[in-house]
Amino acid sequence: MTLFGWTLPQSSTGRSAIVAPPPWHYSGEIIAVDFSAPVEAMAELLPEGMKPDPEGACSVVFADWCSSSDHDDRVLADPGVGQYHEAYVLLHAIRGGKNVGRVPFIWVDSELSLLRGQIQGFPKKLGQIAMTRPVELGRGGVRKAAGSRFSAHATSHGRRVLTATVTLERVADRLPRAATLPLVHTRLFPAIDRPEPAVHELQFGSITGFECGPVHTGPGMLVLGAIEYEELDELGPLKVGAGYVFSMAFSVLGGKVEAL
Amino acid sequence: MTLFGWTLPQSSTGRSAIVAPPPWHYSGEIIAVDFSAPVEAMAELLPEGMKPDPEGACSVVFADWCSSSDHDDRVLADPGVGQYHEAYVLLHAIRGGKNVGRVPFIWVDSELSLLRGQIQGFPKKLGQIAMTRPVELGRGGVRKAAGSRFSAHATSHGRRVLTATVTLERVADRLPRAATLPLVHTRLFPAIDRPEPAVHELQFGSITGFECGPVHTGPGMLVLGAIEYEELDELGPLKVGAGYVFSMAFSVLGGKVEAL
Amino acid sequence: MTLFGWTLPQSSTGRSAIVAPPPWHYSGEIIAVDFSAPVEAMAELLPEGMKPDPEGACSVVFADWCSSSDHDDRVLADPGVGQYHEAYVLLHAIRGGKNVGRVPFIWVDSELSLLRGQIQGFPKKLGQIAMTRPVELGRGGVRKAAGSRFSAHATSHGRRVLTATVTLERVADRLPRAATLPLVHTRLFPAIDRPEPAVHELQFGSITGFECGPVHTGPGMLVLGAIEYEELDELGPLKVGAGYVFSMAFSVLGGKVEAL
Amino acid sequence: MTLFGWTLPQSSTGRSAIVAPPPWHYSGEIIAVDFSAPVEAMAELLPEGMKPDPEGACSVVFADWCSSSDHDDRVLADPGVGQYHEAYVLLHAIRGGKNVGRVPFIWVDSELSLLRGQIQGFPKKLGQIAMTRPVELGRGGVRKAAGSRFSAHATSHGRRVLTATVTLERVADRLPRAATLPLVHTRLFPAIDRPEPAVHELQFGSITGFECGPVHTGPGMLVLGAIEYEELDELGPLKVGAGYVFSMAFSVLGGKVEAL
Repeated sequence: MTLFGWTLPQSSTGRSAIVAPPPWHYSGEIIAVDFSAPVEAMAELLPEGMKPDPEGACSVVFADWCSSSDHDDRVLADPGVGQYHEAYVLLHAIRGGKNVGRVPFIWVDSELSLLRGQIQGFPKKLGQIAMTRPVELGRGGVRKAAGSRFSAHATSHGRRVLTATVTLERVADRLPRAATLPLVHTRLFPAIDRPEPAVHELQFGSITGFECGPVHTGPGMLVLGAIEYEELDELGPLKVGAGYVFSMAFSVLGGKVEAL
Repeated sequence: MTLFGWTLPQSSTGRSAIVAPPPWHYSGEIIAVDFSAPVEAMAELLPEGMKPDPEGACSVVFADWCSSSDHDDRVLADPGVGQYHEAYVLLHAIRGGKNVGRVPFIWVDSELSLLRGQIQGFPKKLGQIAMTRPVELGRGGVRKAAGSRFSAHATSHGRRVLTATVTLERVADRLPRAATLPLVHTRLFPAIDRPEPAVHELQFGSITGFECGPVHTGPGMLVLGAIEYEELDELGPLKVGAGYVFSMAFSVLGGKVEAL
Repeated sequence: MTLFGWTLPQSSTGRSAIVAPPPWHYSGEIIAVDFSAPVEAMAELLPEGMKPDPEGACSVVFADWCSSSDHDDRVLADPGVGQYHEAYVLLHAIRGGKNVGRVPFIWVDSELSLLRGQIQGFPKKLGQIAMTRPVELGRGGVRKAAGSRFSAHATSHGRRVLTATVTLERVADRLPRAATLPLVHTRLFPAIDRPEPAVHELQFGSITGFECGPVHTGPGMLVLGAIEYEELDELGPLKVGAGYVFSMAFSVLGGKVEAL
Repeated sequence: MTLFGWTLPQSSTGRSAIVAPPPWHYSGEIIAVDFSAPVEAMAELLPEGMKPDPEGACSVVFADWCSSSDHDDRVLADPGVGQYHEAYVLLHAIRGGKNVGRVPFIWVDSELSLLRGQIQGFPKKLGQIAMTRPVELGRGGVRKAAGSRFSAHATSHGRRVLTATVTLERVADRLPRAATLPLVHTRLFPAIDRPEPAVHELQFGSITGFECGPVHTGPGMLVLGAIEYEELDELGPLKVGAGYVFSMAFSVLGGKVEAL
């Protein structure tokens, strides 16, 4: 029987596959904090051809995503499938004279996002992520407005890897760089019959429909945790900068690749 | 040493206790579906002195809560503590000639909510709950507006116990009854040295600051799952009615009790 | 309708209740590490009438439990209900001239255990716990034998609270004190209509059928993590002692109480 | 910088990668149940070149694994990394005149296993899995001996997908076929810049050090759950056969591949 499915598991219908092909659509609530790190430490995490931002600019980004898929209605329909949280470190870098972003470490709390990310070259691991979400009424939470404090944290392998806070002061007049840098990923899939990888290439996402709501900003707080499974501590000592809270949306149509 | 703490664990400072005393504040996003069940089945789940609504009116309510506590700043500050999801069955009932609500089954995904609920007489169990949340931008999710479909489900012990959908058609001109019925709970804490309970009493919450946003409504869909740990199936066969999506907030100041 | 159930939820049959009354039976695999702490720090966690062991003796105990219940067949039959992991701190103490044990902090990964524990006065919180389990064949794990290293860790609220290791050297000629100290608990259930607790009493478990297998012992390693929700750090600086790996079983018939 | 790591995330040291290359070692406790399904239904899940066993023989296998990795000490040392549960459906099939096994659906509760499996062509998804484990002492659990009942279940996306029970009667005189069939997997990694997959090939594991302990057997019970994310229901109606409880160990050295 010819089996179908963009990913495993395949079947005669294709409907068991974890991931359907793009287009994929994303609508998210973002909490981000800028920081600067020693450029030598950043360099240890950048692939050949990419140099650290000379000022050592970096960001930590938390996102509470709703996602959908043109080829799989269940992603939008089932909140247990399309919704997830994500937390990542973003190194601001330069490649071929252009500003780009590189994600050395990222955690998500969803199987779909984990595997969809690996296909794009996001080095996703599983984590437990919590983020302040604004409320519309009452005293149980905070509004997305000046004076509110938004917090977020991520845990992986039972260790707190990221803890961030932003105290909102005003609406910024431009987007944070963390929202605008085009990301350069590495797609990597090992072979099982030889040491060389089966797939090893740079990936540049084809993004469309980018939208951003008002960007609330104020002083940030950030702690990177020490953990035996990640080299987060290579990025210290940190100098923490501004934080941001905003809505963001875009679609991924696929990507371009370049051999490594 | 005199140890402090409204609940366990107690310590010399009291800061380890899981739950601090009220006031507690709640701000939530609600997805609810009305249904009617055989009144005999409802009666099997109601304590003495309470009769089923003669029409067999019942509701299922999902809530995405942010909560805070006047005596514990961490509940608001840490999104991993104050935020949680909840799903419950609500029987519309009559007690002493008045309309009241009774919650025979409820699931939450938070330790704090589980124990805070047990203290109030909510019969909370742990569950995994997912709810559609509206998005502000883009195509990754839906808006809280006519035409959108909101879904929610709850799983306990690896079994899907509740699955609900509401397709929004219009803004209702009044609150759903599920939001207005005063709840009558049973506080129950066993003794360990004798068969009779140490605490067994009715509890009526002291609620203040009740607010409700626009109530979006439309046809509902609901499935109650069979599970060996709950008597949900006693409530079938169901007749499913309207669904509702709205924001809600209130504060709990404590409660009154009445001996059983 | 008269509703039944030793705990909530109650119903006409009683079969929805989370916890059935004792007898309860426990069979577990234990990883424990002794340590000593400053006696002043221990005193901050002991109730009136209990004094710290003069040497500052304490233990950390991890347990991989299978449990069953005489009045609920599902606990034994469903591995998702009766099985769970537990991790706790044990203070060696003196009460009325006798050696006793006191558990100021404990984490479990099961709803049943959380609530069954609260009823006995164990101050249980939810946590994520991992423990080395011995294997019978092959190279995927270690044997319960000299030379093997057993590890265990517990995480609560996204923070590692306990990390322990024991390197087995020999079979001990007697039980570790952590297995033999009778525990003194505090049962505490708040009132909702007044500040004073509804239940506040010491609890002494009625234990029968205690069994212990060979106790493998060797040097221990232990780290208590700093966390905003527990006063673990009050117990430092630690002096870490021996570790133990053994099987243990007993039954709980109920308990005796004493007013506080 | 040249970045290292057999999988993502890569870094200058390689120690952040989720998966290290083989050899990998596995020691597990198995609960399995044989069943037969309509051969047409099995054919819908088999790739070209493979035919269903003419009797419709299939199995469901649950495994409680400890694993280790020659190139990553942390897998053995950290019980939160190397240990996991797995549940899968195994179709008995024929390829090129030989008996082989094919795994159309499989769930695990570990990130490491999920990705290590995808590399081998196991179509792993995340799930919640519980299995009876035997106890050494006391009444909290059962012994691996005649008269004991072992149970296991798996949940994915909040739906119970597999529920199995084996009541032990005797020690079998040979291995169950589920333990001996060589598995044929499909390695599949999508391209992001074109519809055709980047990797699509059959994989045959290179297994060594296979060991099996005494095989306890008796009548089995099995329920395959309906779920919108898997085609389990294609395999009904089932005829359930014998069940097995045994220890098993082996090592994976890598694999051979064949183009598709």
